[in-house]
Amino acid sequence: MSVFAGIESINALVVGVNRGIGLEWVRQLLQNDRVGQLYATYRSAATPELADIKDQHPNRVGLIPMDITDDAQIAAGIAQIQKQTTSLHFVVYCVGLLHDETLQPEKSLQQIESDRLLRYFQVNSIGAVLLAKHVLPLLKHGDRSVFASISAKVGSIGDNQLGGWYGYRASKAALNMFMRTVAIEYSRKSPKTIVVMLHPGTTDTALSKPFQRNVPPEKLFPTERTVAQLQSVIDGMQPDDSGHFFSWDGSRLPW
Amino acid sequence: MSVFAGIESINALVVGVNRGIGLEWVRQLLQNDRVGQLYATYRSAATPELADIKDQHPNRVGLIPMDITDDAQIAAGIAQIQKQTTSLHFVVYCVGLLHDETLQPEKSLQQIESDRLLRYFQVNSIGAVLLAKHVLPLLKHGDRSVFASISAKVGSIGDNQLGGWYGYRASKAALNMFMRTVAIEYSRKSPKTIVVMLHPGTTDTALSKPFQRNVPPEKLFPTERTVAQLQSVIDGMQPDDSGHFFSWDGSRLPW
Repeated sequence: MSVFAGIESINALVVGVNRGIGLEWVRQLLQNDRVGQLYATYRSAATPELADIKDQHPNRVGLIPMDITDDAQIAAGIAQIQKQTTSLHFVVYCVGLLHDETLQPEKSLQQIESDRLLRYFQVNSIGAVLLAKHVLPLLKHGDRSVFASISAKVGSIGDNQLGGWYGYRASKAALNMFMRTVAIEYSRKSPKTIVVMLHPGTTDTALSKPFQRNVPPEKLFPTERTVAQLQSVIDGMQPDDSGHFFSWDGSRLPW
Repeated sequence: MSVFAGIESINALVVGVNRGIGLEWVRQLLQNDRVGQLYATYRSAATPELADIKDQHPNRVGLIPMDITDDAQIAAGIAQIQKQTTSLHFVVYCVGLLHDETLQPEKSLQQIESDRLLRYFQVNSIGAVLLAKHVLPLLKHGDRSVFASISAKVGSIGDNQLGGWYGYRASKAALNMFMRTVAIEYSRKSPKTIVVMLHPGTTDTALSKPFQRNVPPEKLFPTERTVAQLQSVIDGMQPDDSGHFFSWDGSRLPW
């Protein structure tokens, strides 16, 4: 974790850990002795896997309920962390919505509905910028820190050749704009924080499950591989990488 | 209007005409003899200026109430146009929100509020893609047509060096993604429609009024100049310009 060189004990916050990439990120951080306190947020109830993790690391792990569509819950969650520590070194926003019981990515304009688009923005874009607002005091400690968000290559406007998935695409483009704007504000207020957006590659999670059919097996990453790759990208970050958008292989992606 | 070469009578739809760029666009289109029917939409009540225009051109101008945050009103407005014509050649989305009585662009993260961000997305991004959904049947006539949206250079992620204005910036980036995705879908369903996003430059309207102090006078365009410039950009469009983002001087802008 060379980006955190010289930091004795790395405190981390992983937002959205009930499953998928967030849950795996918690597991891998716990395997790293340099990680001190680990805070992990979940929306409604903690899953059994998460409860197990807490049982195994009762003092090292703090589980925090946080619905990222609710500004007050984010504020309360951050306040809870602030009671225990004054510094976070690594924050990663792993919340993402592509489909659920009532929502499917749009194949065409005919399927566009205002309320569904608003939900994509609320979960995939606005939650991250609300988090950036509330977490800033915990990043201003003067040591290196990283604020990462899981974005997606389909959120690259320039890379869009296929069309479809209106809401998901636009919400990830909006996330990228929010985070670039956060990077600029942080560069003034917390200059040692690096803000990056990450494309994880197609990962074998519930989010991608209905859309895996045309993904060749070697391009469908297990969560273990995805998180290891993204952690490696983060570990190699330099200050002037802040405000940019990276793929899992470390290459910069176009907006 | 070389992009419309060979079209005898150009039917146009201008969305958001109660003031600013939209109102001026109506005026300039009416000065052009090649423009046949002109449909113009306004949110709540039509202003006296708009009512005057209608009085002067009772048969040529159709005024249509349309709150673009209401899918049903957009559908009803388009249905009203379909009673009178089967084809539109030029559609321009001029609705844009930067500030109003309850909303100011955010100078910093501290001013971020979820509901206000949602409103930016609803007005600046979602309205345009809802319009693209409903207007498609009127564009499939087989002659050239143009669907243009007023975007903004501050909505370019790559160009963002200053920060701030979170909601406005992200909503224009989302608009750009929506419109690029529309361009792809239209290329299959209405291949003679060119979809473009336009940066008008800072224009002397109510939208920019509170932010004009640091704009040098030669860079603050009267609406007449802005519309003439944008119309000239549109007139020069080629089929492979569809899905791209242009400045008032015709140059392509980065995402």
